[in-house]
Amino acid sequence: MYSDDDHQWMSQALAQAKNALYLSNPNPRVGCVIVKDGQLIGKGFTQQVGGPHAEIQALADARAQGFDPAGSDIYVTLEPCNHTGKTPPCVNALIAAQPARVIVAMIDPNPLVAGKGLERLKQAGIDVHCSLMEEDAEKLNPGFISRMTRGLPWVRLKMAASLDGKTALSNGQSQWITGPLARADGHHWRAQACAILSGVGTVKEDDPSLNVREVQTQRQPWKIIVDSHLETPPDAKLLKQIDQSGVLVVCASLESAEAQARARRLESGGAEIIAMANPNGKVDLPRLFSYLAQERHMNEIHVEAGCKLNGSLLREDCVDELLLYYAPFFIGEGVGMANVSPLVELQHRQNWSIIEHTSFGPDLRVRLLKS
Amino acid sequence: MYSDDDHQWMSQALAQAKNALYLSNPNPRVGCVIVKDGQLIGKGFTQQVGGPHAEIQALADARAQGFDPAGSDIYVTLEPCNHTGKTPPCVNALIAAQPARVIVAMIDPNPLVAGKGLERLKQAGIDVHCSLMEEDAEKLNPGFISRMTRGLPWVRLKMAASLDGKTALSNGQSQWITGPLARADGHHWRAQACAILSGVGTVKEDDPSLNVREVQTQRQPWKIIVDSHLETPPDAKLLKQIDQSGVLVVCASLESAEAQARARRLESGGAEIIAMANPNGKVDLPRLFSYLAQERHMNEIHVEAGCKLNGSLLREDCVDELLLYYAPFFIGEGVGMANVSPLVELQHRQNWSIIEHTSFGPDLRVRLLKS
Repeated sequence: MYSDDDHQWMSQALAQAKNALYLSNPNPRVGCVIVKDGQLIGKGFTQQVGGPHAEIQALADARAQGFDPAGSDIYVTLEPCNHTGKTPPCVNALIAAQPARVIVAMIDPNPLVAGKGLERLKQAGIDVHCSLMEEDAEKLNPGFISRMTRGLPWVRLKMAASLDGKTALSNGQSQWITGPLARADGHHWRAQACAILSGVGTVKEDDPSLNVREVQTQRQPWKIIVDSHLETPPDAKLLKQIDQSGVLVVCASLESAEAQARARRLESGGAEIIAMANPNGKVDLPRLFSYLAQERHMNEIHVEAGCKLNGSLLREDCVDELLLYYAPFFIGEGVGMANVSPLVELQHRQNWSIIEHTSFGPDLRVRLLKS
Repeated sequence: MYSDDDHQWMSQALAQAKNALYLSNPNPRVGCVIVKDGQLIGKGFTQQVGGPHAEIQALADARAQGFDPAGSDIYVTLEPCNHTGKTPPCVNALIAAQPARVIVAMIDPNPLVAGKGLERLKQAGIDVHCSLMEEDAEKLNPGFISRMTRGLPWVRLKMAASLDGKTALSNGQSQWITGPLARADGHHWRAQACAILSGVGTVKEDDPSLNVREVQTQRQPWKIIVDSHLETPPDAKLLKQIDQSGVLVVCASLESAEAQARARRLESGGAEIIAMANPNGKVDLPRLFSYLAQERHMNEIHVEAGCKLNGSLLREDCVDELLLYYAPFFIGEGVGMANVSPLVELQHRQNWSIIEHTSFGPDLRVRLLKS
């Protein structure tokens, strides 16, 4: 059905989409190439929120170079939108450009689109094809797909540990378990997320910046602190960088006068405070993630927390992906990776699937999905 | 210096050597191919102790097929021996065969040979070349090289753990952390060793067989139990299989009447008992390994023990290679990999080098060398 050329052009569209990896959140990362007479005449990718989508970029690119997209083949990694969001529908621009074919890698999981974009193009007499390199396209947008289909963000839990699964020495020392290449890779994943989530324990112990430093980015993710009793110190480093990106502190309750006073102090530092308790008086984590997807339009959440919050997230089944870095030495007695409920029978284990293992300098990265 | 053909034939000699992986201990694994007029006319590998070496096998193979090795090129992965061990020197047989060239991958690290074999061949007028694919040849015989050059065996420590570095549940349950493919691979490494070493704790708790089951082998390794106070139960499973292979129980002291009585009970079951104490009244592990190499001619020791003995071996710097299997789930509270001395400063860590990471079904194998 598809030719080698089709695959090659769609690969280029996917490569375009990757340019939007740190940029387009919460919009999906989409790439587009326009091909006429076997020649690439335009290319583009989704810009920052409010900016043009990939198709519009690619059409403008073609025209800027003096090419007419009429009669061309347009390869796009996600179904063009047919609804008006912050920008007008892309299908209108495509129809106006009169291409011969539009080849799409995947249907838009957004229920507002979900095939209707392709339908519109067909009705306009364009030859429309879908599902070329679909799996590759899906891998670019796990968070957007998750939010659209499950009403949840894609939650990626990052941990860096020794060979024997310790993330810090007994004295708390944890900088740095892994080497510079693994740390830079960690920032590559931070940069893709809509928010970096941590716990108040980590904030109090390590006073982390929780921002993207080791890779170039035009956009800093939100910072979310799970902090049942609002113990985040008002002078925490992450609050001082609030001009870079917003800080959301999630507590269990704002009912007491004391909690309200603490909240005011943090709010005066620029933080946003919300409360959502579970029956145990802790932050209701599953509800928090629903909220982040549905109310805050967050696609991917990158978690870097301590063993308590890691354990809660795993126990409450909030994690979709594990991003583990192992450094090649033993720590012995030290801080564990996650306070999960101790396994009592091996047959009751919750298995993950290793999807990738890669060396980063002396360290090993292992990625796993829920299985 | 070497042609593509040379590389190709030496690869075949190395492949021959691999046939001896489970077989030739404590002799090195050696392979040989004989090539005449661009055609392979004979091949062979080291047989079980007392049987013919690779060169003799290959010459016999050529003659059995009606070929005369005179004027041939002989590729052999280790320098031919020039001394009489359990078999006569291979150089004599090679000289008698009158090859044109002998191409060798590596010098024999055995100080009885160490270049003298090549010297004899040269003196006989044969064109001799050395060091073709030397590194590949060395990888086949880490234990033999270690024994010859350091007077120590190559010690490989195998551990199977969860993602969070636990080898068993708190209740001791550890069968099976990893899946069948990883377990079979573990037996592939057992089969290569001269001995499988464990501790009395493991014998008492798990009553393991410590033999090779999941791969085909003509030879079972020795079983060595580190057992300071001779607490190995006389009805332990590994003593019942003593017809398969010898059992060596290593205690700290045989001075007390009680120790002697325990030793007699184990000896009557077929075990051999030796004593070597360190100043703390425990088994002197470094001395044990010297003894195993120098008195017992053991090349590779495969360790499968519990976290106490693992920790002692690592603390006392007895381990050359880590063979780690990670299963894709968390255990939480459980038994750790190795009771190493807890690290107090990250900068004092003892780093290992990851030389390989490979999937075995759902599990991950990571191999590391001391760095």
